[in-house]
Amino acid sequence: MAYHPDFYEQTKIKIPKAGESTATDSGTMAKTGAEQLELHGDTWRVCNFVDKKDIIKIDSATMKQKVQIRDCKGVGIQIESKVNSVIIDNCDNLRLCVNSLISGAEFVNCRKIKFQVKGTCHSIAIDKCSGVDLYVSKESKDVEVTTSKSGEMNLNFPKTDEEDGDWAEVPIPEQFHHNIKNGVLHTRVSELYSC
Amino acid sequence: MAYHPDFYEQTKIKIPKAGESTATDSGTMAKTGAEQLELHGDTWRVCNFVDKKDIIKIDSATMKQKVQIRDCKGVGIQIESKVNSVIIDNCDNLRLCVNSLISGAEFVNCRKIKFQVKGTCHSIAIDKCSGVDLYVSKESKDVEVTTSKSGEMNLNFPKTDEEDGDWAEVPIPEQFHHNIKNGVLHTRVSELYSC
Repeated sequence: MAYHPDFYEQTKIKIPKAGESTATDSGTMAKTGAEQLELHGDTWRVCNFVDKKDIIKIDSATMKQKVQIRDCKGVGIQIESKVNSVIIDNCDNLRLCVNSLISGAEFVNCRKIKFQVKGTCHSIAIDKCSGVDLYVSKESKDVEVTTSKSGEMNLNFPKTDEEDGDWAEVPIPEQFHHNIKNGVLHTRVSELYSC
Repeated sequence: MAYHPDFYEQTKIKIPKAGESTATDSGTMAKTGAEQLELHGDTWRVCNFVDKKDIIKIDSATMKQKVQIRDCKGVGIQIESKVNSVIIDNCDNLRLCVNSLISGAEFVNCRKIKFQVKGTCHSIAIDKCSGVDLYVSKESKDVEVTTSKSGEMNLNFPKTDEEDGDWAEVPIPEQFHHNIKNGVLHTRVSELYSC
C-alpha cells in the first residue's frame, strides 16, 4: 500500500539490534528524561524523543514483541515489521506508521496524532486524546475503534480497493445524547454527525 | 420534592440583593482571584469560592437571569428561584442544587460535580468533565443529557412518582465503538453498558 500523503519517508535515526543497549547520543534531550530506544523483555521502549527531523525506524521487532511509545513530541516513528501491539502514552504531535499489528494500537493522553496502518490491525483504542487522525489500509477497513473521553478524531480509509485510489475521511463522533425512556437510559450519536 | 440524600441544608453564606456590589469578606481567598458573588447585566457570577462549609444561596435571581459559576472548589451552591440557565466552568468538588431552569445547565472542565434539579430542566450539557452525578426530579425525567470528552457520569432519577421514593442510578456511557460498514461509520455504545 502506498503511504498516505500525510506520511513521508525520511532518513532513519537509528536501528538498534535486539538486546543492544542504546541510550542514543543524537542531540536534543526531552525535559522529562533521556531519549530511549531499546528492548526491555518483549517490549520496545521509545521514550522522550522531542522535535526530530529524522524518522525513528524500528525494523528488527518481531511478532511477539510490543512497542511502547511514551513522552514523545514532534516526531515520526515507523515500525517496519509486524509486531504484536503498540501503546502510545502522553505524546504530542506524533506521526506513527506501522506495518501490521497482531493485536492493536492503544492511545492514551495524546494530542495531535497521525497513525497509519499499512497492513492489518484489528483494534484501535483511544482514551483521553484530542486530535487523532487514523489512516487504515483496505485490509484494515473493518478495524474496531474504541474511544473514550476523546475528541477531534477522524478515520481515513481507501474508498476503493485500487492502489493509490482516493481516501475517504469520516469524523469519529465525540458528542452523544442520552435520555431516559421507560426507566432505561438510551444513548444516541449527536445529530452533528448525521449525513 | 425532597432533597436527594447527597444534598443537605446548611446555613446560607450571603444573599446579595440584585445590583448590590458584593465582594464578600468571608475568609478564604481562591488562589486565582477574589471571591465574587454579584449580578452583571443579566448574569449572576459566582467565582473563586474555595472550601466553604456554608452553602452559597442565590434566592433573588429571576427567570430572565443566568447564573455563571466559575473556578469554585469544595462548595455547595443553591439557586432557590427559577432561572434561565446555569453554566459551570472549571469547578472541582461542587454541589449545585437548582430549583428550575428554563433553558438548561452546562458543565465545562469540571471534576466531581453533584447537580440536583428540584423542578424542571430540559437539557444538561457536559463537556470535558469527569465525575458528574446528576439528580433529576420526576418532572425532569425526560431531560436530554449531551456529553462530550467526559467520563464517570451518572444519572439519578426517582423510580416512581412517589415523594421520597427510591432513586435509580444509571451510568452514562463514556466508551463507544466505531467501525466502517459499506463505507459509512457506525457507532455503538460499549457493551460495558449493556444491561
